[in-house]
Parts: sequence; structure tokens; C-alpha cells
Amino acid sequence: MRNTAVLLIACPDRKGLVAAIADFLYRHDANILHADQHQDSEAGLFLMRVEWDLEGFGLGLHRFEAAFAPVATQYDLRWELKLSSVKPRMTIFVSKFDHCLADLLYRWHAGELYCDIPLIVSNHPDTHWLAEAYKVPFRHLPITRETKPEVEAAQLALLAAHHVDFIVLARYMQVLSPEFIHHYPNRIINIHHSFLPAFHGAKPYQRAFERGVKLIGATSHYVTEVLDDGPIIEQDVVRISHRDDLEDLVQKGADLEKVVLSRAVRWHIDNRILVYGNKTVVFD
Amino acid sequence: MRNTAVLLIACPDRKGLVAAIADFLYRHDANILHADQHQDSEAGLFLMRVEWDLEGFGLGLHRFEAAFAPVATQYDLRWELKLSSVKPRMTIFVSKFDHCLADLLYRWHAGELYCDIPLIVSNHPDTHWLAEAYKVPFRHLPITRETKPEVEAAQLALLAAHHVDFIVLARYMQVLSPEFIHHYPNRIINIHHSFLPAFHGAKPYQRAFERGVKLIGATSHYVTEVLDDGPIIEQDVVRISHRDDLEDLVQKGADLEKVVLSRAVRWHIDNRILVYGNKTVVFD
Amino acid sequence: MRNTAVLLIACPDRKGLVAAIADFLYRHDANILHADQHQDSEAGLFLMRVEWDLEGFGLGLHRFEAAFAPVATQYDLRWELKLSSVKPRMTIFVSKFDHCLADLLYRWHAGELYCDIPLIVSNHPDTHWLAEAYKVPFRHLPITRETKPEVEAAQLALLAAHHVDFIVLARYMQVLSPEFIHHYPNRIINIHHSFLPAFHGAKPYQRAFERGVKLIGATSHYVTEVLDDGPIIEQDVVRISHRDDLEDLVQKGADLEKVVLSRAVRWHIDNRILVYGNKTVVFD
Amino acid sequence: MRNTAVLLIACPDRKGLVAAIADFLYRHDANILHADQHQDSEAGLFLMRVEWDLEGFGLGLHRFEAAFAPVATQYDLRWELKLSSVKPRMTIFVSKFDHCLADLLYRWHAGELYCDIPLIVSNHPDTHWLAEAYKVPFRHLPITRETKPEVEAAQLALLAAHHVDFIVLARYMQVLSPEFIHHYPNRIINIHHSFLPAFHGAKPYQRAFERGVKLIGATSHYVTEVLDDGPIIEQDVVRISHRDDLEDLVQKGADLEKVVLSRAVRWHIDNRILVYGNKTVVFD
Repeated sequence: MRNTAVLLIACPDRKGLVAAIADFLYRHDANILHADQHQDSEAGLFLMRVEWDLEGFGLGLHRFEAAFAPVATQYDLRWELKLSSVKPRMTIFVSKFDHCLADLLYRWHAGELYCDIPLIVSNHPDTHWLAEAYKVPFRHLPITRETKPEVEAAQLALLAAHHVDFIVLARYMQVLSPEFIHHYPNRIINIHHSFLPAFHGAKPYQRAFERGVKLIGATSHYVTEVLDDGPIIEQDVVRISHRDDLEDLVQKGADLEKVVLSRAVRWHIDNRILVYGNKTVVFD
Repeated sequence: MRNTAVLLIACPDRKGLVAAIADFLYRHDANILHADQHQDSEAGLFLMRVEWDLEGFGLGLHRFEAAFAPVATQYDLRWELKLSSVKPRMTIFVSKFDHCLADLLYRWHAGELYCDIPLIVSNHPDTHWLAEAYKVPFRHLPITRETKPEVEAAQLALLAAHHVDFIVLARYMQVLSPEFIHHYPNRIINIHHSFLPAFHGAKPYQRAFERGVKLIGATSHYVTEVLDDGPIIEQDVVRISHRDDLEDLVQKGADLEKVVLSRAVRWHIDNRILVYGNKTVVFD
Repeated sequence: MRNTAVLLIACPDRKGLVAAIADFLYRHDANILHADQHQDSEAGLFLMRVEWDLEGFGLGLHRFEAAFAPVATQYDLRWELKLSSVKPRMTIFVSKFDHCLADLLYRWHAGELYCDIPLIVSNHPDTHWLAEAYKVPFRHLPITRETKPEVEAAQLALLAAHHVDFIVLARYMQVLSPEFIHHYPNRIINIHHSFLPAFHGAKPYQRAFERGVKLIGATSHYVTEVLDDGPIIEQDVVRISHRDDLEDLVQKGADLEKVVLSRAVRWHIDNRILVYGNKTVVFD
Repeated sequence: MRNTAVLLIACPDRKGLVAAIADFLYRHDANILHADQHQDSEAGLFLMRVEWDLEGFGLGLHRFEAAFAPVATQYDLRWELKLSSVKPRMTIFVSKFDHCLADLLYRWHAGELYCDIPLIVSNHPDTHWLAEAYKVPFRHLPITRETKPEVEAAQLALLAAHHVDFIVLARYMQVLSPEFIHHYPNRIINIHHSFLPAFHGAKPYQRAFERGVKLIGATSHYVTEVLDDGPIIEQDVVRISHRDDLEDLVQKGADLEKVVLSRAVRWHIDNRILVYGNKTVVFD
């Protein structure tokens, strides 16, 4: 396990920024492992991710904020410090379709996703066996149009009780209320089974089939109040042909969904994603 | 040069169809080179493409229709016979963007596109030099909102005079009138610079950039009265990242447009495309 | 569940073949669902796959061989008849790497792979838990250079006892002896973690990393006596960059391996693959 | 046209590097437009590309070397300074296959490749017309096994006389001598029509066809003394199937070659490539 710190920065682009940040880290003996930055010249924005080894770092982390404050103030930085030693706590929401859940659990088990999973929440009992196989607590909370407010309240209480950091909607077929979403800004990751913005909303495979497209896609994005409109994290497509019927699309699409969602989750966990406006930068 | 015949068939799916068609060809000593068929079980349709060597074929082509009529009538076939020895006549409509034009002309020159090009039509003089380099007649017909009806009439007259079989819109930035389109049903191929149905209409790269998608696409399709809604022939995508600005998207997209359009044109020339409903089958 | 028959045919290409086969099926009232054929003009070969509904088929399957014999003899056909109602029996061989095993088991459970899995065989106990989660018998057979002959004999006995039809090497890190392979010609599917023929043999990711390639690949193939040289069923690649270290290659490659192997297995089960020479035709 | 400077740096990885470089640029009022860096932890190497606007830069370029010397010496930097205002001079070597030449010339004409082309050299006269269409001088130098040394000497004299910076082998079917190559280290870009290291050497499409691969590739690389073994700049692949004969492979491959070679050339011109060991970093 690496014992590193990640600093994520977004601010107005100005001369001297990189020098100031690099100098700060150098003065405290940071051994930089990765650094990446991006300038959006149109928006006048500077975005940066820098990761360094905490071994030999000359600044106690409890004093980081105070020590970094002068730089942050001078350059008007919005910043976050993340520690690789702190496992984020992820909850997976799932409905009946279990392919994304099975994929995430396997990857988590295999060490690809460095997080804790204190809870799986579902409105159906069908995936209980998978949770059991991977020894993850499973909570069945049925939901109807009428009970939605109270169920969401119960879900929020559970999430708070389990100190959940972010939520993955692994083909969870329910639309979350704006109130719910407000509790986890840029911390709810959804997988939509189309190449957004094409076929947003319901039945994307059916509509792709009817339109006669030659590729189908999947999109992972942060959830915002507007359905299927949040910042896109990752997309991919696969080729189809006239030989593929609707069932083939669903099956080929499922493979896409798994890969696209798992990349988004890994990048989120690895603190590689910066949201600005309605877009993302994914530092690789 | 191959001397072959291609038979394209679409009809209601029924038992005995393949046997009847294969038997007909066998009785006339056809040496079949390629045969491909597709059954759309949902629509109850049977679609077929069969290509055979005319060397040794025992039926004069002038007698084909009469000889095939019993089979065609019995099974209610919609069919077309195409000869590889007959070069189709293609016209390219172009505006100022010349990358697709340059690509098509080079491929035509290299023998990839087996057709004649009696004419290039443009509302701008900018691409005249390219037409000259490849020794293709070029006709400059400026167009304005007011003159559109008369210019379209002049275009149609030119197309008729040159016995044009099909039209390629190689980033021709004008919307054709329904009247114009009716003259060439499923014989006008357009390239749209997005992954349809995403970003149909104007400025797709700009809108893709603003939406923050992670892939951009291009789509070739037959032109129908509804803008960017005709049967899709081919699509492809390329990955972009936050490092790509709008200009990069345009450049990466141009490469896609060339490949996607040229595939569609080649398949059209090779009689590989069958349109049914608002979809295509591309026999490969 | 579909109740269909699949006829796979390979023979010298001759006039009248399709007519004869189609006529045979028509005379027995076959309702053809899919038909695909391929002519290899260089090799003078004709290859065909035809699938029909057994509902209403007018020929008892026990009489198929006798009834089809005249056609088979006249055209010198090599043919196989497969029934979709008969589940093939698949055994998975695995070592310590469990990603392909986990993927195959999930797909099997989800109904993507229509087969029985009477047995998982491993030279390590590590994946026992996965077999248990999916309720598949697991047999641990340690192997050393010295014990290899007797262990292979034990494996063969197990396979025979379980009436196994084909074997999947899901990152099984042992080289099978020619004797073993002879028992299952074109019925052992391997996944090799490179884009063959590049990096055949040991440590392909390491060597890809050292060579500085920009894409890595995976290849599924039937196992023959020559290591990594059998008929290729499927291949795919993924882009890498200088930012990816060896560990990243292994992780990105694992995703490829899963997809490429599972496609090969599905096509094998669906009787879509014809081997000729050292190549495959995959009817889609 | 941008008036920018690009600094390319390779050196042993050490603490304080980024701070020292950023501080140097900041002290001279550089407005950084792009900065990217890479650390190869295995090799202990630090690689960097930084581009800044020369508008407002407070250091005359004639004084850059002297001013930068202390930093360069302290950190043992290997560095190069490139100016976007200085067009590099590119020569294209071509044989009879003209698709890559046509593609490069069009891109150059369209402004995608910011360079001068003082000369096209060919051992065949066939592509003269293309050079003429784009108004580029063309020199026909036939070559035989016997005349190779003297022809190479003539080529080198021409390159020197035209102050050529780098050479693109656009399907030039001759092997260059080590002597020739030594004159242009990491400045000769070749396109090989396979996915290296698979099918290095002669007839890659033929061999790919015979092996039955399911994807074919193309590779652009810097030329070194060992055939097809130099640092890889870019690779890509395209899917093929049993339906593709050798001619189809050649045609599909040609599209790959064009795209892969043109990317490499553009990145070289844009000073995005750093060679280290036998690998490249391509800063994007």
C-alpha cells in the first residue's frame, strides 16, 4: 500500500501558480510521484493534481492547511487534500440487473478498487446472494411511488450511519430526488446505458435498436438534478450490426456498462477526477 | 475487373425462399462468389445479397427479368440486379471544408471507389484546385436563401444531364429541399459530424465540447426529408480528453468523417446496402 | 429456450451446393432462422452454418444422417449437426489468477453461456471460494514437473468421467502435453495475454512494457501442439501510454482477457466457429 | 500562428526539479500554456514538456541558454528549446505506394502539419503528379542494390543542401544503411504496416492473413539500425474477419497507415515526443 497524499487544485489561471505550489512542496521535502495539470484557456481555469510520497514529507498533515493557506489565499485556490491511506466508503445501489454489481464486487475483492463497502442497498432481494458471496452487508428497501420520500429518508439515515463517502448506482432503476442528490454533490456515480446525450432517459437500447445505430454506448457520470445530464466521467462504445437483435444489444451493452462504470469508480477512488462547470477532468 | 452480377432481394420471410433462389441460379449455371442473407424476425423480413460470376452464366441478362419473374412473383420479392461492369455515376456536393472531398478523390483515383465522377458541385470556388488536380469537372453554383429554389433546379438539371446515379454530400453545408431529395431516394449520402442521434443539427463539435463528452463521432446516412434522421449507414468514434480544445475536436473529427463517409460510399457503390424501414443492412 | 438445429458444413466449393442444401432443408419443412456461408476462393473452400427451428421440421433427427447422406456424398461434405437443446459440458482449468474464472462463472450464472459446468480443475486451491459461490464442483490437483504425466492422466480420467465436451484454460499457467491435447482437438480454448503472434510464450506484459508498445492485446485460440500457435478465435486490444506502468498493463489487460475469452467460449457453445487449416471462421 | 517556446527536458528524477524549472520560468514572466511531465520510477527518470507564450517573456532567446545553465547543471538536465515560429523542414521518401504521401500532403496543405516540405524523394517517378498538385519539388533517384551507396550519398547531399530537419518514410520500400541513419538519429519516422513486434520485416499483410489474426495494425516508429525495432511512436489496429481477403487487408491497412503515420509526424513537428531508451513519451 502506498502512503501518499494527493492535492487537487482548481483556480483562476495565473502566472507563478506552478512555481508557488512546486516551491511549497519542495520546501517541505515532498517526493513528487505524479503531477498533472490542465489549463482551460477558454474558461481561464487552472486545474492540477499532484501526488507525493508521505515518507519523508516534512510537514505534519494536521499542519498542512495552515501552512498551505498563504499560497491558497494568494492564488484563490479551491483545493482538497486526499490521503491514499484513507479508504473511502462506497455504497452500491442496485435493482434487479446484477452485472455491474457482480463486476464491482469482484474488482473490489481483487484489490482493483481501494475502498470499503459497508453496505449494498437494493429495492429488490435478488442480488442478496452476491452480497453474501463477497461478505458485504445487504439491505433490502422496497420502494414505490408512494413510499419514495420515506424510503429515501431511510436510505440517507443508513448512509450517514455507515459514514458513506460516495454512492454508485449500479443500474439502480430509480430516479433520485433532488433532495437526496444534494446530500452527495459529485459523489453519486451513475451508469447510463447509452452514449449520452443520445438516448437519455428510458429504454436506450430499445431506442438505439429502432434508430438503427451502428454502435451502442455507455456513459458514467455524476448525478445532478437533471436526469442523465451530470458531468460525464467516462464513455465507451461497441460496434453492432444488423445481425444483432435487441437482446444482443443488451448483452453487448452490459459488457460496456461494467467497464465504463468500473473505470469511473476507480478514478473517483484514486482522486483523479476534478469537476468544473458541467465537465470533468480525469487526470491519468 | 470482375464481371459479376449482384442480386439484392427484400421480401416477406417464407419457407423455401433460399431454395427457390439458389435453385434458379443453379439452373442457369451461376458460379456464386458471395452470398449473404439476413432475417429480421421482428419485422418478418428476408433480405439477401448474392453475387455471381457472369463468366459461364447461362442466362442472357436481357432475359433475366422474364426468367426470374415466376420466383419473384411467387415470393413477393422486391429485387434489383446490379452489374459490376457498370460504373455508377457519382456527384460530390461540397462547400468550403475540403477534407472529405480530397479523401474521396484520392480513393477514387487509387481505385478504391469504382465509379465515374462526372461532376463536382460547390457553392464556393475554394475547392476548384482539387477538382483540377484529379481532372474532374467542377461547377460553381453560389446559393443564397433567396436563390435556393432556382439553384436547386439548376443542380437537378445538371445531374440529369450528366446521368448521375447518386450524390455525396461531402460536408455540403446546405440543407436540401424535400423536392430535391425526392429525386434521389436513398441515393444521397451525407456525412454528419456527430454520433447521431446525439448532436443532430448545427454545430455538433461545439455542442460536444460544451457537453464534455469523452468520445466524438461521425455518421454517414441517406438523406431523407427529416434533417439528420435518414437511415444510418456507418458510424465511428474517436476518444478525446480534457486536453482537446474545440480545434482539436474539429481536427480529430475530420479524420473520422473521411473514413466514415468513404466506407458508406464504397458500400453503396458495391451494392452492399439494403434500406428497410429507416434502417440499413450492410452486407459484408 | 430455443429448440433449434445447427448444421455446420465445410467442403470443396462447387456449383449447386447451396441449392442442394437449401432444397434438402426445404423438402423437410425447415424454418430457417439464420444462414451464413463463406467461400474461401484461395483455398477453394465452402463453409456454411445454417440454423433452423425444429418446431415443424419434418425429419426425425435419428433419420437425419441417412436422409442427408446423398447430399453429403455428392458434394463431399464434412458436416456436423448440433442441437441447441443439448447443453455442452465445459470444464474450466485455472491457476491462481481468478479474473477469467470469475467472469466466466458470472456469465454462466447470468445465462450468457448456455452450458453445464460439471467441474473446475485447478493446480492451486485459491479459487475454491468462487466455485463454491456458484455451486460448481472444484477439484484441486497440484502439479509439478515430475508429477505432470500422472496428473494429466488423472485430469483426463476426470474429464471422461464427467463427459466433458470442451475445456477452457482460464489463465491456466501450465503447458499441456501433446498427448493431452490430442484428446480434445479444437476443443481446448486458451486465453493468451498478448496480441498474438506478438509476445507469444512467457511474460507478455513484461515484454510489451519493455518494447514500448502503445496498445496491448489478448488472444483466444484453440490449443494445438505448438505453443500459442493454434487457430485464433478472437483478439482485442486496449490503448496504453507512457503513464501506464507494468501493473497498469496487467490490470488493463485483465479486462481484455475476460472479454476476449468469454466471446470465444460463447461462440464455441453457440456452434459459430469452424476451423479450417490453422484459421477460424466465426459466423456472426 | 502561435508564438511559443517549448522546453523538452529529460534528467534523473530528483526532488526540487519542478520547483526549480517553474521558478526559473516564473522569474522571467513566462505565461505557461501547457505543462506535462512524466516520471519513470523504474528508470529513475524525469521527463517534461513545457510550452509558454513568448509574448511578454522577459528573457531574450539568445540569452536563454546562459540564463538556464545553472538549473541545467544543478539537475543534470538534457534539454532542448524549440520555437513554434520556426517551421521544421521535412522530406518525404516514397516508393510507388502513394496513399501516405497523398495523405501527408493534404494535411500539410490544410495546415495540420506546420512544416516546410522542400523536397520529396522517390526511387520511382509514379508520384510526381502528386508533388506537382501540391507544388512540392520532386526528385526521382532510382536505386538498385549496386547503386545504393552512391544514391544514399546523393540523398544525403540533397538533404543537407535543403537543410532538412527530419525524414518521413511514407511506405518507402528500401532499407536505409546504418550510415545513413546515423545522420538523422530519432529524426527518421517510418510507418510499418503491422502491429509491431508482430510481423516485422517483409510482407506483413500476407503473413497476417496466413496466421488468421482478427485485427491488423500499423506502427510508426523512429528508425534505428535494427529493422522495425526503433522506438514506437504510435500504433493502431482495425478489425478484420474471415470475409476479408488479402486485398481487403491491404485496403483497410492503408487507412490505418495514413492515420498512424500522420499522428507521429504531427507530434514530432509539435515537439511532443521524447525518446528515452528504446521507448517514447508522447506528451498530449
